[in-house]
Amino acid sequence: MVIVPNIQAMLFLCYMSEITYSYSQLYNFTTAVFSKIGCNESDAAAAKVLLSADLRGVDSHGVARLNGYVRLWDVKRVNATPQIKTIHETPSTAVVDGDSGLGLVVAPLAMKIAIEKALNVGTGWVSVQNSNHYGIAAAHAMMALEHDMIGISMTNASPLVAPTFSIDKMLGTNPICVAVPAGQQPAFVADLATTTAANGKLEILQRKNRDTPSGWVQDAEGNPSTDANILKKGGALLPLGGDREHGSHKGYALGAVVDIFSGILSGANYAPWVPPFPAYVPLPQKQPGKGIGHFFGAMRIDAFRPADEFKKDMDDWITGFRNAKPLPGHEKVLVPGDPEREMEIERMKNGIPLIEPVVEDLKKLAERFELAF
Amino acid sequence: MVIVPNIQAMLFLCYMSEITYSYSQLYNFTTAVFSKIGCNESDAAAAKVLLSADLRGVDSHGVARLNGYVRLWDVKRVNATPQIKTIHETPSTAVVDGDSGLGLVVAPLAMKIAIEKALNVGTGWVSVQNSNHYGIAAAHAMMALEHDMIGISMTNASPLVAPTFSIDKMLGTNPICVAVPAGQQPAFVADLATTTAANGKLEILQRKNRDTPSGWVQDAEGNPSTDANILKKGGALLPLGGDREHGSHKGYALGAVVDIFSGILSGANYAPWVPPFPAYVPLPQKQPGKGIGHFFGAMRIDAFRPADEFKKDMDDWITGFRNAKPLPGHEKVLVPGDPEREMEIERMKNGIPLIEPVVEDLKKLAERFELAF
Repeated sequence: MVIVPNIQAMLFLCYMSEITYSYSQLYNFTTAVFSKIGCNESDAAAAKVLLSADLRGVDSHGVARLNGYVRLWDVKRVNATPQIKTIHETPSTAVVDGDSGLGLVVAPLAMKIAIEKALNVGTGWVSVQNSNHYGIAAAHAMMALEHDMIGISMTNASPLVAPTFSIDKMLGTNPICVAVPAGQQPAFVADLATTTAANGKLEILQRKNRDTPSGWVQDAEGNPSTDANILKKGGALLPLGGDREHGSHKGYALGAVVDIFSGILSGANYAPWVPPFPAYVPLPQKQPGKGIGHFFGAMRIDAFRPADEFKKDMDDWITGFRNAKPLPGHEKVLVPGDPEREMEIERMKNGIPLIEPVVEDLKKLAERFELAF
Repeated sequence: MVIVPNIQAMLFLCYMSEITYSYSQLYNFTTAVFSKIGCNESDAAAAKVLLSADLRGVDSHGVARLNGYVRLWDVKRVNATPQIKTIHETPSTAVVDGDSGLGLVVAPLAMKIAIEKALNVGTGWVSVQNSNHYGIAAAHAMMALEHDMIGISMTNASPLVAPTFSIDKMLGTNPICVAVPAGQQPAFVADLATTTAANGKLEILQRKNRDTPSGWVQDAEGNPSTDANILKKGGALLPLGGDREHGSHKGYALGAVVDIFSGILSGANYAPWVPPFPAYVPLPQKQPGKGIGHFFGAMRIDAFRPADEFKKDMDDWITGFRNAKPLPGHEKVLVPGDPEREMEIERMKNGIPLIEPVVEDLKKLAERFELAF
């Protein structure tokens, strides 16, 4: 999700005290927790994927979820020692079975396969079954950048979203990330949930006792709502666009494409049958596939044109947008990836602020696994 | 663009008299016009692409544009006898130079190359430079369906859209289409402009002297507007989402991805420098590439899993959505592609209604080229 992290951080500061930790503190602790549940040393590097969310300001997808992953392991929905394997392939494609591993572990391996295939035949496309939540989409797509490739990453997720004209929740927030290398300019990184707003933004409003803007959610009967707690009362998130008049059928269609590429192309679960993240929520009775699904793509730039020419044009593109005339009250037009990159620099330097409930969660994990925190 | 064509047709009926023509009447006439400007026999089949818009209810992209294409040929921006060629390729990719041909001719050839590459190595990806407007995105993506492939089609277009926080228009309406085969169910076809509403919807409101809903357009100073004529006064369309609070940064990011894949990957023009469709509008002074750009993809289903298994799951997916509980006042939840498919059946049977200004335009073309209409 593209968030303006400074605003998010400011919102947090308004209503909740925070404690700031260095990246290495949180990285070492997360690695230790993953080791304790049985991940081997290279898999414990999943910590890097998880922490990339905290660094980039997507606080809902970082260490705040660490305890959630452990709980999934507790109920045996996550396999800490998976045998991840390619079960079908062609020169440009593969299907990977994640063997119920952490998505944080399965996804980078699958993206690596996409990159290898792109090295060989120009592009690589990998659909993944039998996985779990994989952190932020950007962490995987951005792996392509250092190879002068465009990276693509998407995943399905458990149903929180009501399609246009639907009361029932049929799709997850199903994010898409596309990362494109540039030359002198930083890379273009678009990372977006296919909903008007991601669940993490509702949580911020909940803690502030504030309503949502229009077009974010509907209630259990399908009426428009601005109640930030409505998901707990049977309500739903809305696809990007909000309602039909504002293009929600487009957000719905995009979320559906993510579900089909991630779930159906791989043989994972799909639509309302995608397993939930909270370990206390029972699995859907119907399970048409295995685990949750992801989809990854890598396209070698020089499979199309010389990389230096492409990057020169990307620099020109990015500069053009930065120099566009901004709306009154706005300093400049942003390029996708700008806010997250600035946040990453800031947090790597000054630390990652965590709100009290997250700190308490991590302390309990430390106690359970006899680790220092 | 996914449109609810019945509503669109009803809106037209409210305010403007129409004459209905059969598909074959319009097809034969369009083919004859393309022949008259010098297209060879196989290229004149571009009529089929153009007419697919009329059949599917996207009235703004069909024969209503025929005169526009001829005007582009008049000013030598369209080459009726192009030498279309692949200028770079790998096993899974190609870049095609359209030699200023009609996009309606160049695009199907490029999509065919993508399909051939998918037959060989699992997927095919073709970026196109030096082309012109290609009709509706769905016409090309859907070519993949009969090969049991997923089809992808996108194009950049001249700048009508202001990114989030921008006054300047930097992107076109940049549509994306993804077509996915099913088994017993009709194919899933998502075809969407990356704006809240496409320009064609503004035109409908203009003829009715009605305002737009909020979040569709802004005025020349960047203020929110509901004036359906605002584009003629320096205003802009808005990315899907409308404003930052409703996720316009996501629509902007998606439109940007379409521009990069279509324009920069191919060496076409990009961002605000994409040539305009109306022949009387001068070309931008800066032309960083050649013509306008498209991007096509084809993924063989059985490069991932057996096609019959995939299609069975697609049928289950589609049935699940159709059986979701609809909002009060709505008969059912639609699957992307439903309205256009129903419209196509209806219009193939009962004819294609054209509004008076379009009929007048076609009559003038008939007179000019000494054709019967």
